[in-house]
This record gives sequence, structure tokens and C-alpha cells, in this order.
Amino acid sequence: MSLRFQVLGNDPTSFARLGKLSLGNVEVETPVFMPVGTRGSIKSLDSDDIREIGYKLILGNTYHLYLKPGTEVLDHFGGLKPFMSYSEALLTDSGGFQVFSLASLFRFEEDGVRFQSHVDGSYHKFTPESVIDIQRSIRSDIMMVLDDCAPYGSSTERLELALDRTHRWAKNSIEYWQKDPQNQNLFCIVQGGTEESLRLKSLTELQAMDFPGIAIGGLSVGEPRKEFQKTIQFLAPHMAVNKPHYLMGVGTVPDILESVKQGIDMFDCVLPTRNARNGQVFTSRGKINLRNESHRLSTAPIDPNCKCKVCQTYSLGYIRHLHKVKELTAFSLSTYHNLYFMYQFMAELRASLSANEFPQFYAHWKKLYGV
Amino acid sequence: MSLRFQVLGNDPTSFARLGKLSLGNVEVETPVFMPVGTRGSIKSLDSDDIREIGYKLILGNTYHLYLKPGTEVLDHFGGLKPFMSYSEALLTDSGGFQVFSLASLFRFEEDGVRFQSHVDGSYHKFTPESVIDIQRSIRSDIMMVLDDCAPYGSSTERLELALDRTHRWAKNSIEYWQKDPQNQNLFCIVQGGTEESLRLKSLTELQAMDFPGIAIGGLSVGEPRKEFQKTIQFLAPHMAVNKPHYLMGVGTVPDILESVKQGIDMFDCVLPTRNARNGQVFTSRGKINLRNESHRLSTAPIDPNCKCKVCQTYSLGYIRHLHKVKELTAFSLSTYHNLYFMYQFMAELRASLSANEFPQFYAHWKKLYGV
Repeated sequence: MSLRFQVLGNDPTSFARLGKLSLGNVEVETPVFMPVGTRGSIKSLDSDDIREIGYKLILGNTYHLYLKPGTEVLDHFGGLKPFMSYSEALLTDSGGFQVFSLASLFRFEEDGVRFQSHVDGSYHKFTPESVIDIQRSIRSDIMMVLDDCAPYGSSTERLELALDRTHRWAKNSIEYWQKDPQNQNLFCIVQGGTEESLRLKSLTELQAMDFPGIAIGGLSVGEPRKEFQKTIQFLAPHMAVNKPHYLMGVGTVPDILESVKQGIDMFDCVLPTRNARNGQVFTSRGKINLRNESHRLSTAPIDPNCKCKVCQTYSLGYIRHLHKVKELTAFSLSTYHNLYFMYQFMAELRASLSANEFPQFYAHWKKLYGV
Repeated sequence: MSLRFQVLGNDPTSFARLGKLSLGNVEVETPVFMPVGTRGSIKSLDSDDIREIGYKLILGNTYHLYLKPGTEVLDHFGGLKPFMSYSEALLTDSGGFQVFSLASLFRFEEDGVRFQSHVDGSYHKFTPESVIDIQRSIRSDIMMVLDDCAPYGSSTERLELALDRTHRWAKNSIEYWQKDPQNQNLFCIVQGGTEESLRLKSLTELQAMDFPGIAIGGLSVGEPRKEFQKTIQFLAPHMAVNKPHYLMGVGTVPDILESVKQGIDMFDCVLPTRNARNGQVFTSRGKINLRNESHRLSTAPIDPNCKCKVCQTYSLGYIRHLHKVKELTAFSLSTYHNLYFMYQFMAELRASLSANEFPQFYAHWKKLYGV
């Protein structure tokens, strides 16, 4: 069954909106942050933790899951969700971005991209159709098309080439998917770097194909923050209001604030989990580096305002100790807290939209986390 | 308050016995296995997991905790238990064994041992009194004396030297502790390698000092399995029946079977947690290597007879995948299962003693795990 997306309210001062994304039996309130489980596991947590925190939509990655455990295993288990014992909703990146950023070697061909695995050096090829087939083995609720994400700093010529390829592949993708949708949904990916005319061209061509959702790719890939903001700001008035808008790979507090303001509904980012493993946690008072000497004797929780089980049970001083001696438990406790924080932050963001108080919410958090 | 130890039943065919160890408000049924939390954390789990599995007595290490977080932090938090948010009972090794096995350098002196930290190369000294002071900062319910654990293969002369030192230090230790017991208890450590006359001498001298409990050290340190068995078998009839008997650093299934048979009440071992991180788990059917290719498509749990939350939720195939791609969650799920297994194994062992069926229990598990 195709997804349903309803806009439930709009911030009168910006493009920000409150919505509901229905994926089969799962209802996801938007704007939403999706934790990243690249290889079928949110790093250092288990599926019970994710359920306990409340996440109803998580992310997996086609490139990694294709290499390991592979489609035979995924098919055998009936998809990634039964494999990892997670029963809510799942979105998968197409793997294109990972081919360009992780594979040892890759080469474009007319109908796809050849690459060498970063895991074992073996050779593979992704086509628009094959990544949909892999995502069918994964059985994600939302699949992404194969696209060409030209690296930041690419010439206009290279960006134009990427658009041609991305749009041609998008057309192949939607046709292939529509022959047999199988309760899955397919999102397109808008490219074009930070050049406004290319972004507009990409958005216009892709929106004409009527995908169930629109993703923006190729941002937060190294461009200056101003360019990032300018690009989403430019795109905002052109995005189809009846489709969910997903900004790929973005998810810091200030970036979410800016992007929600420009009508973005969905986010994913590895930073809350990666930062946690590096000892950086988010709180209602700003960021904290757990390894700081200043926390050595602190009997207070990471965040006195946080209701998560880590903050209810453990002190900053203890978690600092675990980080200093590199105990594995440091990673799971800090990750749990950060993902709880992100969940709560998004819930409060939605509440502010619902109460027509988004500008105040924006100002409050911008001050705490702003750049 | 001093510990209370009651023997509740005896196996008529061996020295095996059922008991109850009372440590303040905490009642521990024996024989008991204690999970190891060297640096204030059972590796990859949190205190809630330990509580959930049911462990009421865990182990910490004086050497590691003295180096980090240090006594200032431990004193500030009121001991390791509040620091790690664990409210049941705690035993601490004295750190002597770690000085000999981990420190970069060490040198015996009449009244203690000087050593260089393996962490930062700094110099320190442990004396019988100072390790009690550190254990007072840790506030463990059971403290261990500083002893000299001569390495396996030592000459009789070296073993005799170790006994002199161990017994002299034990005397200093008990006198120092008794001046201010502070609700803590102190166990002596019997040494003597695998030489029966030295073991008997050590046991006799130490038992005469009337410690609240008797530990056997210097076993499972590399000696052939037969020597290990012979030594505990030899000691069994000589151990004071009214005191708890603790065999240090021992805790595989076959070693527990042999040792319970010889009247041992308490065990600790890093193997259940370390093996788990290496992909080896224990089941009611024997050991399993999670990384084996044969489990790739297995939708069964690690152990169909296991009631732990990991076996209730995740498949062998999934946990194998997590191990193969080195996801942190592989370590926590496998560790949780192994510690649940050990808890359950000890509960069933005690039930067999209670039902006068220890010989059958011994035979059953010996066949599955025997060497």
C-alpha cells in the first residue's frame, strides 16, 4: 500500500509544517528524525532500546546490507525488519551515495555504476533496477532511487552530468518499481549541488514523475553552512506541499531548525550515535563533552531535565569514567541518551508547531545550539 | 556487620553443599557465580541488565579502580556500588594478582609491592594495609587480602617464599581490618601452587586466623587440568565447613562442576563475558560459535530452552550477522545471554543439591561440557 501523507498544520511565519506519514499500520508524526542502523543495528543499542525510546521509523543502508548479510539472508528472513526484530517502519538509502564515498573504486556506466566492495575487494554493479530489487529483499517501507551525488566542489558541467544521470535513472526506477510496488514506496532524490538553477531543474523534473516522496540529496557534504541554508531556502517554495520532504543525512539541532523552517519533514543523521561514542551528548542546556575533567565528581545526570533511563539511573561522573577507561557500556549509555534526546527534541518541535509556537521554539534552541 | 554463612544442605556423595551467604540486607544463595566488572562495569552491559538477570553479588578490581577512577572519586560517590548504580553486593579482588600480571614492572618489599601502572607508567605501592584502605573507598562487602601469587611453574623455594609473604601479610591484613571493620568482610587467600604440603600448610595457617571466608588463589593460572583437579580434591576435606569457600578466577562449566563437588561455594571468571565478545555462547546443548557459517540462515534463538530476553527476541542468524560485521550490539546481546546462562546454570545446580540430585546434574553437564 502506498504511503499516505497528511499536512496537519502550518507555521504561519515559515514553511514549517506538522504532518502524519502513514506506512501500512505504522503512523509517523512529522517532522521526524530517523536513527541510522546502517548494517541492521543502531550502533550499540538493540531493537528493544529503539522501541523503548519510541522510534517508529529507522534507516538501513542498501550498500552495506547487500554486501552483508546479503539478499539471500534478507529474503530468507522475510526482510530486515524481522531479521533485526524491529516491527515499525524502515527506510533504506539506495546505496548510491555509499558507492561514491566508500567503495575502493567505482566507474559509471550508462545504466548504472560498477564498484569494488570496501569490505573484501569483490566487484559488483548497481543499476536503478538492481537497487530496487535489493530494497525489495530488505523490504523497506520507503526505498530510495539510485542517483549520482556529485561531490561538493564539482564543476557545473559535472553537476549537469549528474542531473542527466539522476533523472534518467529516476525514470527507470519509478517505472520498474510501479510494475510491482509490493507495499513499498519509492522516493526520488533531488541533486544539483548548490547551484540554484540546477536544483530547480532537478526538483521540477523529478516532481513531474510523481514519486510518493521527495528527498534532497547532496547537501551537508562539505559545503559552507551558508550555502546549505541558501539552497534549502531557495528550494522551499518550489516543493510540492502534498508530498513528504526528506533531507538526507542531515540531523544536527541547528540544521533541523533551519530545515524544518523550510518545510523539511524527515531527517536522518549518524551524528547523535557517532557523537555519543565520542563522548559528546546533547542536553537541554547545550552540548556536553563527557570526557571533561570537570565532570569527574559530578553526581548529577547528563541532563537533569531528561527523563531517559540513563539520566534516571547514572551520573555524569560514572559515564565519564566509563568513557575514560573505554568500557563498551559508555557507548550504549551515551547513545541511548542522545537518541532519547533527539526523539524528545522532535516531539517538542512538533508540539511547538501544534501550539503555533514554532518561532519561539526555533529561537530557544538556536540560542543553545546555534552556529 | 560481618557476613553470615549457613550451610543448608550437603550432597551425600561429595563435598558439594548448598548455602546462604548474608551480606547486610543482601542474601546470596551458594554455590554462586559472580560476574566480573573489573573497572566498575560488566563489559558491554549496564547495571540494569545485571539486576534484571538476577545477580546479587558481582566483582570489582582494586588495582584497576585504584588507578581509575581513583579513591577520591570512589570516596566522593560513597563507594563503587552507588557510583555504578548497583545496589546488591560487591566483592573486590585485592589487586595483588593484577600487579603481578598487568603492571609493567613490580618489586617485592618486606611490607608490600612496588609497581608501575600499565596505564600511564606511574609508580605506586600496595601494602596489606593500603589495599584495605582502597577497598574501604570502594566499600565492597567482601575484600580480599594482598597476597603473593607465585606464577605457575615456580620452584618450591619460590612457592615457600610466597607462602611466608602471603601469611605475614594476611596477619597484617586481618589486624588492620579488625580495628575498623565498617560492615565489610575480609577473606584470606590460600596459595602453594600445586604442591600438596604447601597448600595444606597455607590453608592451616590461614584458617587459624579465622577470616570470615577462605579463598583459594593461584589455580587456573596455567597448570594442567589434572593438577588443578588434584589440588582442589586434596584441599576439600581440610577446609573449615562453616566458612564460605571461594575459588578465585575459576568459572567454566566443567571447572565449576569439579569444584562444587569439592565444596567450593563461590566463583568468578571473565570467560562468560570474554567468550561472548568473541562469539562463543553457552547453551543447554553445549557451546556454540556464533560466527559459524552454519548459523547464517538460522531463525532459531541461540538456545531454544533459554528464557533470556535475547533468546526470546533475536535469532542466531541475526546475532551471527552482528558479529560478522563487528557491530557493538553483538557484544551486548551475546554477553547478556552468557551471563543469563551462567545464572540459570547455577540456579539449576543449587536446585539439584536441594533435591539430592547433584550426581545426575554433574553427569549431565559433564557430558555436555566435559574435558
